[in-house]
Amino acid sequence: MNRNVTDPFLPPQRLLLGPGPSPVAPEVLAALALPTIGHLDPSFIGLMDELKQMLQTLFNTKNDATFTVAGPGSVGMDACILNMVEAGDKILIARNGVFGMRMTEVAARGGADVVTLDFEWGTAVDPAAVDAALSKDKDIKFLAFVHAETSTGVLSDGKAIGDVAKKHGVMVIMDTVTSAGGVPIMADEWGVDALYTGTQKCLSAPPGLSPVSFSPRALEHIKNRKTKVLSWFLDVTQVMAYWGGEGSRAYHHTAPINALYGLHEALRRLLVEGLENSFARHRKAHEHLVAGLEKRGMEMLVAPACRLPQLNTVKIPAGVDDAKVRRELLLTHNIEIGAGLGPLAGKVWRIGLMGEGARTEHVDTLLTALDKVLAS
Amino acid sequence: MNRNVTDPFLPPQRLLLGPGPSPVAPEVLAALALPTIGHLDPSFIGLMDELKQMLQTLFNTKNDATFTVAGPGSVGMDACILNMVEAGDKILIARNGVFGMRMTEVAARGGADVVTLDFEWGTAVDPAAVDAALSKDKDIKFLAFVHAETSTGVLSDGKAIGDVAKKHGVMVIMDTVTSAGGVPIMADEWGVDALYTGTQKCLSAPPGLSPVSFSPRALEHIKNRKTKVLSWFLDVTQVMAYWGGEGSRAYHHTAPINALYGLHEALRRLLVEGLENSFARHRKAHEHLVAGLEKRGMEMLVAPACRLPQLNTVKIPAGVDDAKVRRELLLTHNIEIGAGLGPLAGKVWRIGLMGEGARTEHVDTLLTALDKVLAS
Repeated sequence: MNRNVTDPFLPPQRLLLGPGPSPVAPEVLAALALPTIGHLDPSFIGLMDELKQMLQTLFNTKNDATFTVAGPGSVGMDACILNMVEAGDKILIARNGVFGMRMTEVAARGGADVVTLDFEWGTAVDPAAVDAALSKDKDIKFLAFVHAETSTGVLSDGKAIGDVAKKHGVMVIMDTVTSAGGVPIMADEWGVDALYTGTQKCLSAPPGLSPVSFSPRALEHIKNRKTKVLSWFLDVTQVMAYWGGEGSRAYHHTAPINALYGLHEALRRLLVEGLENSFARHRKAHEHLVAGLEKRGMEMLVAPACRLPQLNTVKIPAGVDDAKVRRELLLTHNIEIGAGLGPLAGKVWRIGLMGEGARTEHVDTLLTALDKVLAS
Repeated sequence: MNRNVTDPFLPPQRLLLGPGPSPVAPEVLAALALPTIGHLDPSFIGLMDELKQMLQTLFNTKNDATFTVAGPGSVGMDACILNMVEAGDKILIARNGVFGMRMTEVAARGGADVVTLDFEWGTAVDPAAVDAALSKDKDIKFLAFVHAETSTGVLSDGKAIGDVAKKHGVMVIMDTVTSAGGVPIMADEWGVDALYTGTQKCLSAPPGLSPVSFSPRALEHIKNRKTKVLSWFLDVTQVMAYWGGEGSRAYHHTAPINALYGLHEALRRLLVEGLENSFARHRKAHEHLVAGLEKRGMEMLVAPACRLPQLNTVKIPAGVDDAKVRRELLLTHNIEIGAGLGPLAGKVWRIGLMGEGARTEHVDTLLTALDKVLAS
């Protein structure tokens, strides 16, 4: 292509079945293009209130501090960890993939005293091991874990892990980037104190926003910090003056108006479908995919009990050129699937059936294309 | 309005003549709604390269580290300051409005040893005073200032301030949130080491992204930090592995795909118009507004020599109800203008003529509506 830098950009049409972004519905794309209004406009304040209510439903929480951080999921991770943890605080991070590793990096930069508990990639966080680790070290104040590991396709048991944390009186930080909208999240019931997600997985909005929620106990803890949160932008007490302000809203930053239109429409569609129906649709697409792959002699990485319906890791058949298959799927068939990360690089493909992508017809499209590519 | 939380959101059509967001062209809104693709898709990598080239033109820089941070301008401020400054580093912050104050807060949270130099709100940063401050304290390593203060409508002299910094061998951090696209920025000529802007001012894209640029000297400095950048997400050395990676692009965070489509289209339109033509259009709209306001007996806050064409602070006439006028303009005439901030609250209105807003016909629309509101 002989492009001039000032030519309009026209993206190709891809079927997004990788680890994210997921396909975005035309209605959500259309919402992005609605006219921009001001971030202090009374109409916009109404939108923010509705977003908060819909996110509370999504997370099954009454947390007042439920809002959207103006950056992608990684910023949500920064926001949760850097608000909760102060320099010297001891945090236990249960790790079973890339995003648990990243939590360690984020907490360490925040000056935390990080204790790690590692599980084999492709397996779930074991609540009994967490119990043992917390029993051994009474100085631990926080437990962080990833509910749905995007790097491996594993779902950990939020309730069981939350119960262990409750028993030891530690506060819980949970990554729900890939779980929200695809499997149930019961933030209040599980006793989660801080959680974050992303918009580009099972919510099927474009990437760029990170819904978060903090329990009243977490907020109280943050208000009583000895030191200020390291990032002014991420300081929840400041952000809440804008998102949660009763009566007057204090200007903090300029909210990403059009992106929030898109998220509103995506959440609206999800709640109109119903969360249970969405979960069932994810399961159905997942089962259809697994059946199709197994019929072709392929093997899943993760044991059935902790498989994540929305993120499927399948072992790459022996003798198959990983990169070539993914490239041909993308460039010839316009289908994106994901590569393995870290120790799983070259060993698995990551097939996302997230949000709008979680449909059996998309699975059929992928399997048909995969047959062609593998035969070529 | 009796809304259900899951009703679609339909924003009103406003003429945005406040301090931002500015009006967004239909072409830019349409670009936001283009189909989402993956952040590692070869087509998307092409888009990133073009964005970089267009931003280099905008800032008049050859800086390779020119890219877009996935958050609003406030995140750009965090990114520039927290990457450049380590705990204990001495930084001089020249302050003449809200955003200089905010820089102090950001730098202090990063552990910097902050020295402040204050100027009356509504006046520019005085290069001679900066020279004196730098002469007095040889431990100062950084100078930060706001090129165009959105809170007061003042333009400071980037070249003169840059020359002073050069003389003293200190590195320069410059806020160009409201200047970029409305007045010239000569990053390389002025010797700016780190700058950030926002998309929702003279670039006329929706809010939510922050283009930044770091000089080679700044990058070298960041690479040689003794301590890691406090925020993993904002660490330029990590982000550059994704934006600047030659050959392979390392996954860092999921880029805000659709928002970047919008920015690409906004920059494309700006460069097709030509930067000089855009500056002239801003000046023309500004002069038209000032003439219209003065004809009505109103007075500008800022002296002509340092007035920012794109952000006009006009003194509220005696006896006029500030909030009522703004409310009526917004709710009856669908025109947004801004309130004064801090010591200027209740004393000035802030009229933004930014990007698509910088047109004499919009000025006429505003003046006509203002006449009606003031007469009512």
